[in-house]
Amino acid sequence: MFKQVSIIGCGLIGSSVFRALKKNNFAKEVITFDNNKSVSEVIKKENLSDKIVSSPEEAVSDADLVLISTPLSTFESAVNSIKKYLKPESILTDTSSVKKGADAIVKKMNLKNIFWIPSHPVAGTEKSGPRAGSPDLFKDRWTILTPDSKIKDSEVKKVSLFWESMGSKVKIMSAVDHDKILSLTSHLPHVVAYNIVKTAMGDDEKTKQDIIRYSAGGLRDFTRIAASNPTMWKDIFIDNSDLIIDGINKFSKSLDDFKKAIEEKDSKKLLEIFEKSKEFREAIIKAGQDTDKPGFGRK
Amino acid sequence: MFKQVSIIGCGLIGSSVFRALKKNNFAKEVITFDNNKSVSEVIKKENLSDKIVSSPEEAVSDADLVLISTPLSTFESAVNSIKKYLKPESILTDTSSVKKGADAIVKKMNLKNIFWIPSHPVAGTEKSGPRAGSPDLFKDRWTILTPDSKIKDSEVKKVSLFWESMGSKVKIMSAVDHDKILSLTSHLPHVVAYNIVKTAMGDDEKTKQDIIRYSAGGLRDFTRIAASNPTMWKDIFIDNSDLIIDGINKFSKSLDDFKKAIEEKDSKKLLEIFEKSKEFREAIIKAGQDTDKPGFGRK
Repeated sequence: MFKQVSIIGCGLIGSSVFRALKKNNFAKEVITFDNNKSVSEVIKKENLSDKIVSSPEEAVSDADLVLISTPLSTFESAVNSIKKYLKPESILTDTSSVKKGADAIVKKMNLKNIFWIPSHPVAGTEKSGPRAGSPDLFKDRWTILTPDSKIKDSEVKKVSLFWESMGSKVKIMSAVDHDKILSLTSHLPHVVAYNIVKTAMGDDEKTKQDIIRYSAGGLRDFTRIAASNPTMWKDIFIDNSDLIIDGINKFSKSLDDFKKAIEEKDSKKLLEIFEKSKEFREAIIKAGQDTDKPGFGRK
Repeated sequence: MFKQVSIIGCGLIGSSVFRALKKNNFAKEVITFDNNKSVSEVIKKENLSDKIVSSPEEAVSDADLVLISTPLSTFESAVNSIKKYLKPESILTDTSSVKKGADAIVKKMNLKNIFWIPSHPVAGTEKSGPRAGSPDLFKDRWTILTPDSKIKDSEVKKVSLFWESMGSKVKIMSAVDHDKILSLTSHLPHVVAYNIVKTAMGDDEKTKQDIIRYSAGGLRDFTRIAASNPTMWKDIFIDNSDLIIDGINKFSKSLDDFKKAIEEKDSKKLLEIFEKSKEFREAIIKAGQDTDKPGFGRK
């Protein structure tokens, strides 16, 4: 579909895009560029690029689609370094987990004759870096696009097909809706995971060793979530801070009520909450977002 | 090893014990008893018992080891119904997730010539009921025994071998230590999972539908934890309430600090927390409590 695609930033996401595009032949040539030397060495060694370039100009001047998959804190400097060299009528997209911030950065630059179509592939693992990538990372996962309404449908369609070629399902919505939904489905769960791990770690040394040993009872699953890429999550928390703080406040209120129910040994209230949680999970399974197989007791 | 083992209460745990004992031939005969008619019907249909009995007397009068695996809220009535019929010098054990409560109930009864050796197999899935059982449920998982120091070592050894025959690792500790550790590794994570699901559910109907659809970004894993057996968890929260409330208070304090770091956009503090979480997870992997394989992005 595209003659040339350029990937700027080749970590877990960027390298997975490369792997997927090569598997499905959706792009004739994929060019990669990464500022980090150790990343570039892995890309070279593991053959994760058709052409590794060393200047931003080389990276984008002939690309039909440029994908920026850097952490959000280096997104602005990445766009700055390439903006002069973008090919007229080419598509610029990204992979950042908060859309408001990236969108503001690009709009400020007032790029002429470029189609800015922000993407967020809602996929990942707790591993980071190019070695962790997989061609199947986006398979059956959602990618959310948040283009301005004035962007031509035909260009948005190209970006949809780009992600669909990697097995992703695509949904178009506003940046505002995206950031609200993700604050609850992803950002708040990560806040909570970090804090549950922090609470467990905060105990005396003897208890801490026991906690590590018996972590399989629930804690383990939180440490998995809390092991995700630190830089990426620091950026997300700062960039979507208003909505996340709003989520934390709602969560704290809910937790206070729950604590009261435990203090008062209010079985009826506790059971009501649990039954509703079960129903919610059933809705998630029905929506195809998880399987019905038990996983909590996994080996 | 045992001539006769009796299982009182045949849900996920009880039926898994039966399945495991039959697989490894550790007991010559396994007798089952369950008050719930629909459970008994499944046990019969799926051949999950050598002998289904209908009276507590029949269930235990010839048993060398009696295992009570009912929810904690029916534990007292279960012990009451069998206590007169226990065979002299037989072993009584259980599977409850909080040891303080079960221990107090049995000690109050002042059973003579019976070895009370409480067990907690730290294993399970979010599924419940006899159909969810598996002979491998306890494999590579810990079982914690909390017998009084005056119980003969030879009897404790028998219970250790009982769980080890099912593939479990066994650790002996005090009921107090057990309840403290589990309040952090298991009970607090469940409290938090219920509340994160409750927070996500609390939004308006449109957002709720979107939240279900995009739950794969983190929320999904919490709904899995929050789908566990409601009665069991209600009992745990009430029975271990003091330690759980203590854990909630510590967690809330940690969450407030974290919120402040987000509000102040304090990158350094956030990164410090994340790096420590990663180290803690690495310790858990090293302790053999989880694998290093990425699972967060699972299909």
